[in-house]
Amino acid sequence: MTEAAAATVSATDLTLEEKASLASGADFWTTKSVNRLGIPSIMMTDGPHGLRKQSGETDHLGLAGSVPATCFPPAVGLSASFDPELAERVGVALGVESAIEDVAIILGPGINIKRSPLCGRNFEYMSEDPIVSGVMGTGLVRGIESQGVGSSLKHFAANNQETDRLRVSADVDPRPLREIYLRGFQRVVEDAQPWTVMCSYNRLNGIHTSEDPWLLTHVLREEWGFEGIVVSDWGAVNNRVAGVAAGLDLEMPSSSGRTDAEVIAAVREGRLDEAALDVVTGRLLELVRKAQARPAADGPLDIDAHHALAREVAGRSIVLLKNDRATLPLTASQSVAVIGAFAEEPRFQGAGSSQINPTRLDKALDTMVGYGGQDNVFFAPGFTIHASGDAEALRQDAAALAAEKDVVVVFLGVPAAEESEGFDREHIDLPAVQLELLDAVLNANPKVVVVLSNGGVVALPFADRVPAILETWLLGQAGGSAVADVLYGAVNPSGKLAETIPLRLEDTPAFGNFPGEFGHVRYGEGLLVGYRWYDAKGLDVRYPFGHGLSYTTFEIGDARASVDAVGDVIVTVPVTNTGSVAGREVVQVYTSLPGSAVQRPPRELKAFASVPLEPGETTEVSLTLRRADLAYWDVRVDGWVVEGGRYVVEVGASSRDLRASTVVDVEGDAVSFPISLESSFEEVLADPIVGPELAAVVEAKYGDQEDFVKMLANFPVGRLDGFPLPRADIVALVEKARKH
Amino acid sequence: MTEAAAATVSATDLTLEEKASLASGADFWTTKSVNRLGIPSIMMTDGPHGLRKQSGETDHLGLAGSVPATCFPPAVGLSASFDPELAERVGVALGVESAIEDVAIILGPGINIKRSPLCGRNFEYMSEDPIVSGVMGTGLVRGIESQGVGSSLKHFAANNQETDRLRVSADVDPRPLREIYLRGFQRVVEDAQPWTVMCSYNRLNGIHTSEDPWLLTHVLREEWGFEGIVVSDWGAVNNRVAGVAAGLDLEMPSSSGRTDAEVIAAVREGRLDEAALDVVTGRLLELVRKAQARPAADGPLDIDAHHALAREVAGRSIVLLKNDRATLPLTASQSVAVIGAFAEEPRFQGAGSSQINPTRLDKALDTMVGYGGQDNVFFAPGFTIHASGDAEALRQDAAALAAEKDVVVVFLGVPAAEESEGFDREHIDLPAVQLELLDAVLNANPKVVVVLSNGGVVALPFADRVPAILETWLLGQAGGSAVADVLYGAVNPSGKLAETIPLRLEDTPAFGNFPGEFGHVRYGEGLLVGYRWYDAKGLDVRYPFGHGLSYTTFEIGDARASVDAVGDVIVTVPVTNTGSVAGREVVQVYTSLPGSAVQRPPRELKAFASVPLEPGETTEVSLTLRRADLAYWDVRVDGWVVEGGRYVVEVGASSRDLRASTVVDVEGDAVSFPISLESSFEEVLADPIVGPELAAVVEAKYGDQEDFVKMLANFPVGRLDGFPLPRADIVALVEKARKH
Repeated sequence: MTEAAAATVSATDLTLEEKASLASGADFWTTKSVNRLGIPSIMMTDGPHGLRKQSGETDHLGLAGSVPATCFPPAVGLSASFDPELAERVGVALGVESAIEDVAIILGPGINIKRSPLCGRNFEYMSEDPIVSGVMGTGLVRGIESQGVGSSLKHFAANNQETDRLRVSADVDPRPLREIYLRGFQRVVEDAQPWTVMCSYNRLNGIHTSEDPWLLTHVLREEWGFEGIVVSDWGAVNNRVAGVAAGLDLEMPSSSGRTDAEVIAAVREGRLDEAALDVVTGRLLELVRKAQARPAADGPLDIDAHHALAREVAGRSIVLLKNDRATLPLTASQSVAVIGAFAEEPRFQGAGSSQINPTRLDKALDTMVGYGGQDNVFFAPGFTIHASGDAEALRQDAAALAAEKDVVVVFLGVPAAEESEGFDREHIDLPAVQLELLDAVLNANPKVVVVLSNGGVVALPFADRVPAILETWLLGQAGGSAVADVLYGAVNPSGKLAETIPLRLEDTPAFGNFPGEFGHVRYGEGLLVGYRWYDAKGLDVRYPFGHGLSYTTFEIGDARASVDAVGDVIVTVPVTNTGSVAGREVVQVYTSLPGSAVQRPPRELKAFASVPLEPGETTEVSLTLRRADLAYWDVRVDGWVVEGGRYVVEVGASSRDLRASTVVDVEGDAVSFPISLESSFEEVLADPIVGPELAAVVEAKYGDQEDFVKMLANFPVGRLDGFPLPRADIVALVEKARKH
Repeated sequence: MTEAAAATVSATDLTLEEKASLASGADFWTTKSVNRLGIPSIMMTDGPHGLRKQSGETDHLGLAGSVPATCFPPAVGLSASFDPELAERVGVALGVESAIEDVAIILGPGINIKRSPLCGRNFEYMSEDPIVSGVMGTGLVRGIESQGVGSSLKHFAANNQETDRLRVSADVDPRPLREIYLRGFQRVVEDAQPWTVMCSYNRLNGIHTSEDPWLLTHVLREEWGFEGIVVSDWGAVNNRVAGVAAGLDLEMPSSSGRTDAEVIAAVREGRLDEAALDVVTGRLLELVRKAQARPAADGPLDIDAHHALAREVAGRSIVLLKNDRATLPLTASQSVAVIGAFAEEPRFQGAGSSQINPTRLDKALDTMVGYGGQDNVFFAPGFTIHASGDAEALRQDAAALAAEKDVVVVFLGVPAAEESEGFDREHIDLPAVQLELLDAVLNANPKVVVVLSNGGVVALPFADRVPAILETWLLGQAGGSAVADVLYGAVNPSGKLAETIPLRLEDTPAFGNFPGEFGHVRYGEGLLVGYRWYDAKGLDVRYPFGHGLSYTTFEIGDARASVDAVGDVIVTVPVTNTGSVAGREVVQVYTSLPGSAVQRPPRELKAFASVPLEPGETTEVSLTLRRADLAYWDVRVDGWVVEGGRYVVEVGASSRDLRASTVVDVEGDAVSFPISLESSFEEVLADPIVGPELAAVVEAKYGDQEDFVKMLANFPVGRLDGFPLPRADIVALVEKARKH
């Protein structure tokens, strides 16, 4: 059969054995073919910030070397740009590289919420906020899939830690699950319809996500309209038969035929409806057809162009946390002591499945020498990344160098061995040897710029003692140059924190509930994730969510907000570059609803825009706050509800630097909760039909006993026999209310 | 049939109708009689800090006036004594008053954990700590029941708020449920075997406690050996038939026959096993027999003696929070400005079912005049409790009085209307009018003693500005005199905080998870309740759990700890009164287990003793830490487990004033978790049988790939095909481990 014919194959053309075989991988990276019907194998590779295609024979674990590919900034960096268009450009590049390597699907983006800074895989995730995660994830998916290459939105869902990740149950209540942990996934699915979604390793409220029909079918497909396939995370399958029934289309990697046989037996024995397998088969055939439809790639890879993009993106990923007395940018004529091993040995990506074999690797020191010249830029390692060697001698040499230069740039960071897929961190501290080095340097020369390389947030106990800090996260292969670009002002930093930098680990929302034990982790902080927690508790932080400085200054003018024809809230606000160099401001819109009938964090991000501005330029920025994003999840109706009322709309340069505020009246969704015998006395009093009648009785009988009435206000009326009326009269009243 | 004959009646002697009738009340306060068999009605009344017996016709709500009775300090006061013997003496008095009034059962004690300071009923509860709650509750039960009167241990269980209390589900994970919320109940049941336990209004993990067979039968009777009856809280019955099956013996108050008919119908229709009803009937008959066995009471009530006891107990309930520069005690010759309406209108108990009609009521002002004389003690109200009147004029008068006296005693407190059964507080602030008054007084005369009257904890923003603070909680009818006793040094204060006084409401453990919404409240703070939270998070507090000063000083010497024959830990420590007046120190023993395999708060109270000491006297105090209290609840075995190891034992005068520390080696319980295909790679590596074999394979194949091995450590071995061995070999290894 030809490929053209394959396009018309449907599930009914396949034997039971063939259908079962399609539903699991051929090896570590490819699906099985069905030669009889011309159905080819397709290949997936790890992502999400670069292609990790293993060449030749794949090992049994898929973790051996891979072909060179451009290493873009991991999600922790990219998300700091707050720019979905930039993410889309990265996605296009990833799609191009995949196509050249004949890879059908690149496994990413990862958009899990950063619940705790300890999660070992935070460098692969976007943010503590679901709108940032969803918007940035959408950008990546759109870019990748514009090239006829599939993406895989992962890890679905509530995979927010590495500890015991294949067994632990994330125990999450409905509102945080919907409003925080699923919201980003919902956005990407609804906006970008990715080819695939990857289920996570963990259990969710006790059920393996790889076999959860509620998650994989009810929510993902029926509620959100997902049309693609669900692939298991590699090794996530617990019960393959249950997975087929639940909507898990593809098991990866190969089970060496073991689970295929289980599926076949289950169908034969009537434990699995063959129709469910047919649905899975149909979706897998459609996936293969999509992969086959990819246009021929224009190879070979333009390494230079992609490296240049990686450098641009890295520059956009850097967050200027602090810059007192205009310490930055450096000038070419300043004498600079560059200290810290990371200047020469860049920490540019995390370990695990996303580890790329880069086409190139820039070192900050080299590019700094390019800007400042060999006569002005001097290096001392100061420490070794693995804290080997003579720490005291390294420290003294560095301090001596620092003492004699105009300015000192100290590269600090988290050693790679401490951050990886597979395990979580146990603290958020930089290594002691580095902090001691910084102390010594500061004593020698207080004019210090700290440059941080880290995938997860670190505590910054020295923040008040250094005039400038660059948080550079992990920046991919061109990050070294990008750091130099920012240090010397060739690039004006515009990154913003997509996650809060706390003062202490103990302050973080999941502390005490992370990483759980005995196979369960309780998401006890509920809705109060990230900045929502610090704001609700009134906790000081080191640097707040959304924070990030520039070499120029911006003014945010008066905001206006109105509801448009489809019910979205349109916020317009003028933004002006009031400084002397071009730059970008990330305008952030937060909402709150004072007097809300439900629990709400003090403010929640609903929209943002990265706005480029020339010096003196003013732009009227218009941002759309989707009506759907104003909704909370109401467990009483098991659905989203927009509460009516006067919303406060705040516009700021960070979550704690709010520059403009306005209000907008939003009409609520019509929801009603009928009166019953379970209704409380005060709920019946509030009923428009029978409330006044009941109130009159209460006033007549208990008008002088206010406290007494208040004490009984929360009694279900069905349990009040004699107050304020005999039970029969109460029953009649409830009946009357219900009949209206 | 005679009463003597009634003693031999068993369930089988009763008709179905009679059995059903016994299982619910006759009216608001009494059970039904069965005249045919000589089974009398018995009476219950509210407690727990005094008798609330309604005279004559009871109303339909049981909240009208009651016969005079001694109002002892509510639980919030009594618990500050940390003295179960004192609680037992109060219990004896309650039993005596009950017997005189022919009351069979007094409804108390209430020992629910103070999860949030906002709970409106905290004044009726003991502590944020389960050992304090359990030990003090045991004292009360023993005292009451020594008089042939029954107690009712309430509210079982996890009834930690008033908001939506009849519908809300307390959603609590197994460890906090067992270790915090049930531990006190377990202790009282096991140590004192109360006649009755009162189920709570709320649901627990979704199930109404009034119909929860797990709670009322499995845990309460099968695990803890409870032999008494379970009575519903008044109106707590949701489904009476389910309640009978679950082990709810008695519904209160009367359902006017409605639920009796439901029970009869359910038995007739086969929906309820009559044997379950027989069990309930048998227990109710036994209760009646116990009530009948009460010796005749020696009336009438000795009002003077009980008032004197109430005064003594109130003196023991007062906590001296602060006493800089020996501001207290006052001397008779000092001129004193007494300010604050509470000095004349004592706030001495809370509102709701526990509200007593006291036999007498002492005012602090009167007794202070008694100590200091009319020439030295002057009063200005300063404010009105309901913030009525001319606040400015009241304030100015008070400030003027304060300015001209040696010392100022300012009585502040929470108005009664803000604290009651039935609803929770919305904040923990004292009324603004009182804080403004205090400001004005402090400006006039800084030598201020603040005397606080409050059922729930209040924020003390002025703590650093006043030299002395007495926390007097609610002290019952003799509290006014007791306060004067302490102010003038006739009584040396010895109360300790049974709950933390936080700096801010936002710092409290349940903030953000209290009081829940939509019928659910998530106990998201888990084990970290009360001081466990503040210690784990490293949060400053206003005054820590266990804190309380004295007019003398104590020295705690070196502690020794050893394990006795039954496995308990015996701690001995010398305590010396190093000051010049007699006093009491509450010696507190906390434990921790560094390196524990399970989550633990930094320290937990395990034993305490209130030690009276003359000046210069030293006593060797011996405290028993029960082995059972060292156990954590292990969900893997669904049971208590004592973890072996070297426990740190700290002895202190408060949870943050630890004066002595030692260690003790405790042998762990034998528990094992067999290796399976679900065991993680690292768990199999740790197995004594096959671990070394697997380790050798790993070393040979992956010895140079440490990071890689670490990344896979948490994979269940059943999901690892090819690492480090083919799946068949892994299966064989697991089999080998299991067979040992």
